[in-house]
Amino acid sequence: MFERSVIIVAGGSGSRMNSSLPKQFLPLAGLPILMHSVNVFRRFDRSISIVIALPEQFITQWRELCLKHQFIEKHLITPGGITRFHSVNNALVMVPDHGFVAIHDAVRPLVSVETIHTAFLEAEHYGNAIPCLQVNESVRRVEGEMNFPVPRNSLKLIQTPQVFRTALIKKAYALADRHDYTDDATVLEATGEKIHLVKGNVENIKITHPFDLLLAETLLKEMLPSGS
Amino acid sequence: MFERSVIIVAGGSGSRMNSSLPKQFLPLAGLPILMHSVNVFRRFDRSISIVIALPEQFITQWRELCLKHQFIEKHLITPGGITRFHSVNNALVMVPDHGFVAIHDAVRPLVSVETIHTAFLEAEHYGNAIPCLQVNESVRRVEGEMNFPVPRNSLKLIQTPQVFRTALIKKAYALADRHDYTDDATVLEATGEKIHLVKGNVENIKITHPFDLLLAETLLKEMLPSGS
Repeated sequence: MFERSVIIVAGGSGSRMNSSLPKQFLPLAGLPILMHSVNVFRRFDRSISIVIALPEQFITQWRELCLKHQFIEKHLITPGGITRFHSVNNALVMVPDHGFVAIHDAVRPLVSVETIHTAFLEAEHYGNAIPCLQVNESVRRVEGEMNFPVPRNSLKLIQTPQVFRTALIKKAYALADRHDYTDDATVLEATGEKIHLVKGNVENIKITHPFDLLLAETLLKEMLPSGS
Repeated sequence: MFERSVIIVAGGSGSRMNSSLPKQFLPLAGLPILMHSVNVFRRFDRSISIVIALPEQFITQWRELCLKHQFIEKHLITPGGITRFHSVNNALVMVPDHGFVAIHDAVRPLVSVETIHTAFLEAEHYGNAIPCLQVNESVRRVEGEMNFPVPRNSLKLIQTPQVFRTALIKKAYALADRHDYTDDATVLEATGEKIHLVKGNVENIKITHPFDLLLAETLLKEMLPSGS
């Protein structure tokens, strides 16, 4: 059995959600989104190590939320950096060098246990596993004033958790010569590793707009009829 | 005021929805999806001409559904062809040569009146108008065994209704030398016309999987709180 960790990146400031709360703290079925994300990794593996990367100014508020909701799942907190890259880089320090690490967006609380399971399993074989979905709509590429059709069958929408052999992603972050990456797979790829895609789950939406929160509420009711 | 028509393409056979009903007939808030799509165009313009392209084997069932739901919105029906291209081509015959025509997927019942309005207005100026949305997720392109990151800012997800000066899209369909198009903008583009993108609405989802139907139910409740 390999050692497993997850870094949950909770860097949002809430600007697109018309809310003073950062989006990772917005309530979803009564519980902050971030707690749902922690819970699903805990359901996947009772002993997984959880590291949350959170902007420094929200850490006190998070501790208060944990008290309020009697949220006792064990986790470490690391202050987020000025970009997503810096946040993940800070969090990787807290993860043991051996084993495997998932890097997950806090605002994807509806990832399924099955997606997490598949990603760890395939990463153990291929060194990395990146969940993705088909594109269901026609796609065009805009280039200046022009735009062109793109064959949609060749495109995949990328999700998280992205799972890596910890030593490989640590090395990739150490070697990176740019800090504007928004996607961990691309950081790894820069070291010459081949990216291994696996199937994500369609409910695993990224909560970006108020619309998404509404959708997540509905999906959560369907996915967890018992209410937790 | 230009003459306005809409072709609603209802070609689905239901195979992906785990249902013997074709997906355009599945109930959404108690009403077949196709009726919602008709209703929104009628809300946009009381006098728009509506042509529904429907596979021949479903026409009787559609008439029965209209009776059952006392659905009296005036519309023409044209039998769908073996591909989407043939269905639209058949339907275009029913549309007057002058004015503007929207071509809409029946399974997008949540298009907003505003999206339709914008598309007609801009088509009157540019000859065509194609609603689209930004991509919110990282995207990769698969090529054989390899895959590569694609800058998502350059990509747009294409929606319907796609609105055209009727004479231009009729000419494009007449000149087309392939019949496997899945998108009317691309048919027009083959004649050398430039495609004009406009903003779609985020609720304007394409109902493809059971997941989408659940989502549509939720959205409909939010968009039409009065229940119609």
